[in-house]
Amino acid sequence: MSANEIRKDYLLDRWVVIAAKRKLRPTDFVKKKEERKKGLCPFCPGHERETPPAVLVYLPLNGGIRKDRDENGFRHKNWIIRCVPNLYPAFTPPDNEEVRLKGHSAIVRADGHHEILVESPNHDEHPGTARVSQLIHVINAYLDRLKDLSNKTYVKYVLLFRNHGREAGASLSHAHSQIIATPMAPRIVVEELKASKEFWTKNKGCVFCDILKKERDGPRFIWENEGFVVFAPWASVNPFEFWILPKRHQSTLSDMTRKETEALARCLRASLGGLNSLLNDPPYNFGFHITPSGEDYDYYHWHLEVYPRLAIWAGFEKSAGMFINTMPPEDAAANMKEAVQKEEKTFL
Amino acid sequence: MSANEIRKDYLLDRWVVIAAKRKLRPTDFVKKKEERKKGLCPFCPGHERETPPAVLVYLPLNGGIRKDRDENGFRHKNWIIRCVPNLYPAFTPPDNEEVRLKGHSAIVRADGHHEILVESPNHDEHPGTARVSQLIHVINAYLDRLKDLSNKTYVKYVLLFRNHGREAGASLSHAHSQIIATPMAPRIVVEELKASKEFWTKNKGCVFCDILKKERDGPRFIWENEGFVVFAPWASVNPFEFWILPKRHQSTLSDMTRKETEALARCLRASLGGLNSLLNDPPYNFGFHITPSGEDYDYYHWHLEVYPRLAIWAGFEKSAGMFINTMPPEDAAANMKEAVQKEEKTFL
Repeated sequence: MSANEIRKDYLLDRWVVIAAKRKLRPTDFVKKKEERKKGLCPFCPGHERETPPAVLVYLPLNGGIRKDRDENGFRHKNWIIRCVPNLYPAFTPPDNEEVRLKGHSAIVRADGHHEILVESPNHDEHPGTARVSQLIHVINAYLDRLKDLSNKTYVKYVLLFRNHGREAGASLSHAHSQIIATPMAPRIVVEELKASKEFWTKNKGCVFCDILKKERDGPRFIWENEGFVVFAPWASVNPFEFWILPKRHQSTLSDMTRKETEALARCLRASLGGLNSLLNDPPYNFGFHITPSGEDYDYYHWHLEVYPRLAIWAGFEKSAGMFINTMPPEDAAANMKEAVQKEEKTFL
Repeated sequence: MSANEIRKDYLLDRWVVIAAKRKLRPTDFVKKKEERKKGLCPFCPGHERETPPAVLVYLPLNGGIRKDRDENGFRHKNWIIRCVPNLYPAFTPPDNEEVRLKGHSAIVRADGHHEILVESPNHDEHPGTARVSQLIHVINAYLDRLKDLSNKTYVKYVLLFRNHGREAGASLSHAHSQIIATPMAPRIVVEELKASKEFWTKNKGCVFCDILKKERDGPRFIWENEGFVVFAPWASVNPFEFWILPKRHQSTLSDMTRKETEALARCLRASLGGLNSLLNDPPYNFGFHITPSGEDYDYYHWHLEVYPRLAIWAGFEKSAGMFINTMPPEDAAANMKEAVQKEEKTFL
């Protein structure tokens, strides 16, 4: 099994993984594959053999949690959280740990990892309706996988993200996140790091702390708790887009305290629950924006960006790299604010 | 009626038009609007009053064409091509022609134009199945609108593009293209110009001429005629993506000769017809990549990029700005080559 390639565009700083190993034929693209029925879901308890062995499971132990992994053909049952390699990985570990990056040429091996984090044994326990206690496990599992993957020599960046709903790219409906470890820092991360560093050097402060201060008192504010602020960003690309920022300046996710982890769980539950009730469970994508591994990036401030999928990026967006959003973020925030306030009463 | 805003992201060089004037409510986003039925199509002949007055019509005249526009409440019938302002424009002309750009700050007025080019009186005459004679009219109309819009002082760039099929963002199924004139050169254009200029300076030649030479003899070649080459690009972001490049170095579309226009029409018919037959009329977007108006960009080489819409950009793509393509361009090209060769026999 040879590694996938990552290729650079002729001119643009745009990289694409050519995931050749799936060996699809043109007919595979004609009709989208049908989703497996609920009873046949490979992520539901009892179907553990239908996925590769888990790299991490959370198991119940005396009211707490015990962490383990599947080994020697054995598959853990009775799990609370289960993280498995993707059956169709875009990135795969190198045969040996020798790194063979060719610098900034037009091709790089797609060394890395591609995992599925099954967020709950309950098929439909998505963050917008989940128990807060379960969301705390989900966040802790993010942190565990982030730590493990970041330590590998060939991993430069770990992207934690979630596709919710078929139209947002989720091919299976069981509550799950994805984790992709890449051998290079992706473009948007690089651009954010560069701009944050420039601001830091010029203004002796963090650009995200600055944004947070301004948005917290403005027309795009949505919600806050002791650890996090939710707001619609100034130049929202997507209708009802919102960002979640930690109040305390921290460059990466793994610096969170236990209290902050709990606050983030409540924040996810309130904001995604509000989105769910406001727009009847719309499809969305979210991604954690964190620092690459290996170096210090004190000037960066991690955050989560949530993109509801309510419009189609078409010829204009794809050809120009410029966007049209028909929902002003100020209006989106006003609606979300009300919805999230209602939502928090249902679980706090 | 006030102009829309274009806002820049806090950090990224990413701009979004906040098209506030549609005044949508959250419920408008819950269910997608249903497309109007074929008999009620506002782009079909007999429905001219359902669109704003045409800014350009092609009318038959002694076996040739007469060009005109709708004026004083009169609407032309019996048209061959019809170009009208979009009912829901993202960009609108300034109240007067005073340009009020604020330079590289975080906001700009969305001055410009947003037009629909109805490509045929026949509802279903899409380029993949159209008469070549009709496609020549379409290209000529692109050129006419490009010339007219480029001459306006507040227009910096004209994007000619096409959304085909509902999943590619076409809300109406009648064959049509869109034309958007913007007050700034969009990001992808700026990046391409920069890279072409660097190559030009360093190598005393055109980077696209260089690409064309290499791809024409390689595994990603699809088709060519006397004026144009079709190939799958090295770092195709989309399954079955292909690009069309003019063989003669020309920085913008309006330098085409009449022979080249005809060759482009045949090239569109063959390549989009091949795509149509290979993948059962898949949704796609295409966009012309040309130079901004006003200056000389000798180092640039215009081209057309076609993006079949067979995969979903999800959390990874949107958060990272990096892509996964499950169809290697070499395999896509081999399949397309065969399909386009078959296709050309049907109309040449």
